[in-house]
Amino acid sequence: MADRPRGLNLFQGLRRALIGAPIATSKAHQERLSPFLGLPIFSSDALSSVAYATEAILGILVLYSVAALSHQIWISLAICLLIVIVAISYMQTIHAYPGGGGSYVVASENLGPRWGLLAGAALLVDYVLTVSVSVAAGGAAIISAFPSLHQHLVLLSIAFVAIVAWANLRGVRESGALFAVPTYGFILGMFAALGVGLYKAFAGPAVVQQVFAVGEGGSLIGHEASFAVLYIVLRAFAAGCTALTGIEAVSNAVQAFRPPEARNASITLRWMAAILAVMFLGTGIVASHLPVLTLHASSNPEYRTVVSQIASWSFGDRSVPFYYLQFATALILILAANTAFAGFPRLASLLARDGYLPRPLARLGDRLVFHNGILFLAIAAGAIIWYFHGALDQLLPLYAVGVFTAFSLSQAGMVVHWWRLKEGAWRRSALINGFGGVLTIIVTGIILVTKFVEGAWIVSILLVAQYALFRAIRLRYASISRQLEIGEKPPTMPREHVSLLLVPRVHRGILAALEYARLLGLDCRAVHVALNVKALPTVMELWDKYGEGIPLEVLATPYRSLIQPVLDYIDRLVEERPDLVVTVIVPEAIASGFFHKLLQENVANQLKQALGSRRNVVVTNVRYFLD
Amino acid sequence: MADRPRGLNLFQGLRRALIGAPIATSKAHQERLSPFLGLPIFSSDALSSVAYATEAILGILVLYSVAALSHQIWISLAICLLIVIVAISYMQTIHAYPGGGGSYVVASENLGPRWGLLAGAALLVDYVLTVSVSVAAGGAAIISAFPSLHQHLVLLSIAFVAIVAWANLRGVRESGALFAVPTYGFILGMFAALGVGLYKAFAGPAVVQQVFAVGEGGSLIGHEASFAVLYIVLRAFAAGCTALTGIEAVSNAVQAFRPPEARNASITLRWMAAILAVMFLGTGIVASHLPVLTLHASSNPEYRTVVSQIASWSFGDRSVPFYYLQFATALILILAANTAFAGFPRLASLLARDGYLPRPLARLGDRLVFHNGILFLAIAAGAIIWYFHGALDQLLPLYAVGVFTAFSLSQAGMVVHWWRLKEGAWRRSALINGFGGVLTIIVTGIILVTKFVEGAWIVSILLVAQYALFRAIRLRYASISRQLEIGEKPPTMPREHVSLLLVPRVHRGILAALEYARLLGLDCRAVHVALNVKALPTVMELWDKYGEGIPLEVLATPYRSLIQPVLDYIDRLVEERPDLVVTVIVPEAIASGFFHKLLQENVANQLKQALGSRRNVVVTNVRYFLD
Repeated sequence: MADRPRGLNLFQGLRRALIGAPIATSKAHQERLSPFLGLPIFSSDALSSVAYATEAILGILVLYSVAALSHQIWISLAICLLIVIVAISYMQTIHAYPGGGGSYVVASENLGPRWGLLAGAALLVDYVLTVSVSVAAGGAAIISAFPSLHQHLVLLSIAFVAIVAWANLRGVRESGALFAVPTYGFILGMFAALGVGLYKAFAGPAVVQQVFAVGEGGSLIGHEASFAVLYIVLRAFAAGCTALTGIEAVSNAVQAFRPPEARNASITLRWMAAILAVMFLGTGIVASHLPVLTLHASSNPEYRTVVSQIASWSFGDRSVPFYYLQFATALILILAANTAFAGFPRLASLLARDGYLPRPLARLGDRLVFHNGILFLAIAAGAIIWYFHGALDQLLPLYAVGVFTAFSLSQAGMVVHWWRLKEGAWRRSALINGFGGVLTIIVTGIILVTKFVEGAWIVSILLVAQYALFRAIRLRYASISRQLEIGEKPPTMPREHVSLLLVPRVHRGILAALEYARLLGLDCRAVHVALNVKALPTVMELWDKYGEGIPLEVLATPYRSLIQPVLDYIDRLVEERPDLVVTVIVPEAIASGFFHKLLQENVANQLKQALGSRRNVVVTNVRYFLD
Repeated sequence: MADRPRGLNLFQGLRRALIGAPIATSKAHQERLSPFLGLPIFSSDALSSVAYATEAILGILVLYSVAALSHQIWISLAICLLIVIVAISYMQTIHAYPGGGGSYVVASENLGPRWGLLAGAALLVDYVLTVSVSVAAGGAAIISAFPSLHQHLVLLSIAFVAIVAWANLRGVRESGALFAVPTYGFILGMFAALGVGLYKAFAGPAVVQQVFAVGEGGSLIGHEASFAVLYIVLRAFAAGCTALTGIEAVSNAVQAFRPPEARNASITLRWMAAILAVMFLGTGIVASHLPVLTLHASSNPEYRTVVSQIASWSFGDRSVPFYYLQFATALILILAANTAFAGFPRLASLLARDGYLPRPLARLGDRLVFHNGILFLAIAAGAIIWYFHGALDQLLPLYAVGVFTAFSLSQAGMVVHWWRLKEGAWRRSALINGFGGVLTIIVTGIILVTKFVEGAWIVSILLVAQYALFRAIRLRYASISRQLEIGEKPPTMPREHVSLLLVPRVHRGILAALEYARLLGLDCRAVHVALNVKALPTVMELWDKYGEGIPLEVLATPYRSLIQPVLDYIDRLVEERPDLVVTVIVPEAIASGFFHKLLQENVANQLKQALGSRRNVVVTNVRYFLD
């Protein structure tokens, strides 16, 4: 009768140990950030792309010819320009949406919900790829330092995903102090490596670069047609555009900054863009002056990242600063994955709140994080890494389509925003965003075309599928709402009511259910399905003794089903008196312990399943307890 | 209100198409068999072992030396003698247990339930291995005819398992006419091959046998110590004992014969033993006279069964009778697997009826077969074949331990039976069974020792584990029975009763649940868990309008759990009034279609899980319907 002390069961205990105790909603607060502490939190995704973007450009150019590698520096310059323009565009967004101007919000508000959904789909797909690419690049940084780990690349990468997912399930706080060390550490290391590299490149004697590459046998190699050159340059440019991923992060999170929020966010974005542009351009210049450059496929055991080759040349191979930079690179890349782990569930919850994703995704878990979104992201990113064996050069072509789609929609939305507002210097703002928007739309087109066969087609399909899913879920929820509208005449229940007690055998548990049935005070029927004819006399005898005068109806079961005779009985009852509500009382044994639970059958659920669309049948579980 | 026509859903429709419509219990009848039709049904397991037993002996001897192959004929003779003795022993059992004397029954009744359980465990394990070995041997017969199929051996074998399982799920009747053709066809083919072979062997000129074998590098090769010779001979003998598997089948099924049942069963057993002994010995003799004998491991693409080599020599390679015998061999081996599919679920149901296995295994399915047992057997046998790549020479060492354990227990039980009865010529009967028992115990020992490292250890562990599982399940059921005993004072329920209606939002579905709550006529409380504080005013307002005057209690949920505040509320209620029964009314949306179901949450089950051991809380589901 009395309540037992509520301990945690095995699963709950394990969960509590791994994830931690619940955190109260009232504890949900955010430290307000200065630009100095805001930069590390919101820039890891953008800055870390330095680790792979230059390499992506070189990897495409070398397919054409070694001589084509000289185009790299011009492509890098163009991308730097793009970084600056996009950053300026987003500064406009920060001032216009100080509450946080993610692409989903901006596109939804200004272009309409459908374009917003497309932006949402693009962002969700790209969050998954951010995790896959960042973690695979982190793995590449590690194996460049420890080549013997090459064969364990997939395991290493998936372990990174698991660790980040676990930290997020626990509810890691985006603490500026925590993020500052690896981010500034990486910036410091990169600047040192690039500084030494630039000095060596321009102070030392000029040497002709030796390039080692195992060609993929690209079909363009050897063709000297100018169209082919243009195509390969555009393809390399598209590959390098991965450098821009994450640049929009600050504009999503203006409220995380100290007042004046917009100004501080804007300062942070400016610094981030400057650092990114400098590091990216520096990497490009030093890479083109490395005396020996190896460009192998990720699957080749000789594969080393270009950044590790720069570090090796600048600091000396296998020197302490070399190892330092490799670790710092891996760390910032893991932080970049972490950014996606914060962003994906948050966006999914926005979409779920608006009815475009299943509602449980909108619910904060007991650690103040969105558990379902985190788990989904970890599984999806892990599966992609697994499928591509963690090969960065195969993952990168998938990347950036989503990012630039979201950029374009966001910029286009901003133009509409200024046009509608028509306040202050709206023409200038619209012009800036318009220029950025036109540029990003062009780049999106370039990426789509040049990366299409390499993998952008997969992303396109995913985008469309995701968009269709949003619409389908939304339609479903709308249909449910319509069906559940109360309308003029609220539903009524018939007033006649009988209860139906299932009596498989006669024992203490059944008697408790019988007590309950009597407590309800309804016209009560007891039925026994005669599965075991031999046991029938015992059941009848015991029922005569304990059944409190309620007649026990024995249902024959010619096909040995437990459920069907009960359904037939209910159908007969309802046929006779269509105005009947039938409450089926199902006694259910509750066992403790896993092995014990295995030996129990859950008849109530089977019955509920089988009831199908029979209306006015209510299933009641009276539980009895086994030790 | 009215009942919808009950169609079948997708799963049910698919199931019906595959398995067929239900069959009524009243249709459960068995044709009564003459010895001529009984023989094919009950002897396929025993006779089919001719396909691999001789080969098993040769496979062991050749590890020692080619010269050692000459021992085969003496080992075969000894096994023939064993066949005769065991058959005579089982004839005693037939007359003593005309109702059917399986080892489980005989050992349970005479040696006590624990020995019976050991026999039961041995039989269950051996049924699984019968399927694996027979099907793998059937595959070997097919690849001996079509060597190009060698690489598909596993697929072929698993397809055989699937077909037999499917036929049994449909409820294949053990029809004598159906089984007669393959069995007599096999016997005919074997006799023809052996007859021609014997004629060639003894009428033709004597030749020295050429043996091709790829040695496993057995450690005994080259040792000439007499102990080593004895050991290898015993090991070969143990391998050959697989010939006896299935010999007990007739004694399990005396009631399947026409009256006089015992006499007809006995005649059948006699014929079966005679045919088995003649075929087995003939195979041994012809095998030792084959001009060329190849003994390769199953994994070798050159591998051919010894029986196929005999057929090839007798009939001419790739002649029509050669192919005929290979197909007939495969067919009778599949029938042997089928025997296990009939026997395993039947024995499992006996054990479940006695409380040693989960009760659902005792239940006949809607096609009058024990579905669960059939599925379990198919999965277990398939997994074993998969694990051993269908290699007969790796599967055979596992086999026969269980069979001979069951033989020994059965014979020992019979001795006790005669001793107790002390009727008629009981001394003679006890002597026969005693002799058989001592012999089978010795053979069990030999098998265990010589096959231990090769695989008998796995079977020993399985036997012990199975035995322990039986005991654990039995103890659990006994504990449940004790707990559920009605005893002196039947349980009473407190007389105070309130209902608790969960109101997540206010819509048509909830109003139906409210109607139901009012229909119960209890003190009704309505609670709303404030997961979404923004929606609260709407909920309150709608409730004021439609809540029929019942006050709505809003529960705060500091940790954003839907369930915990409800539990806390119940705990408070019960704390105030310990004599309370609380009926929690959970509205549940029933959606049609798989995608739609995915979007629904099942709060009732979550709540039931979370209720743990809270007593006097009843969960009631009021279902409402979505299209």
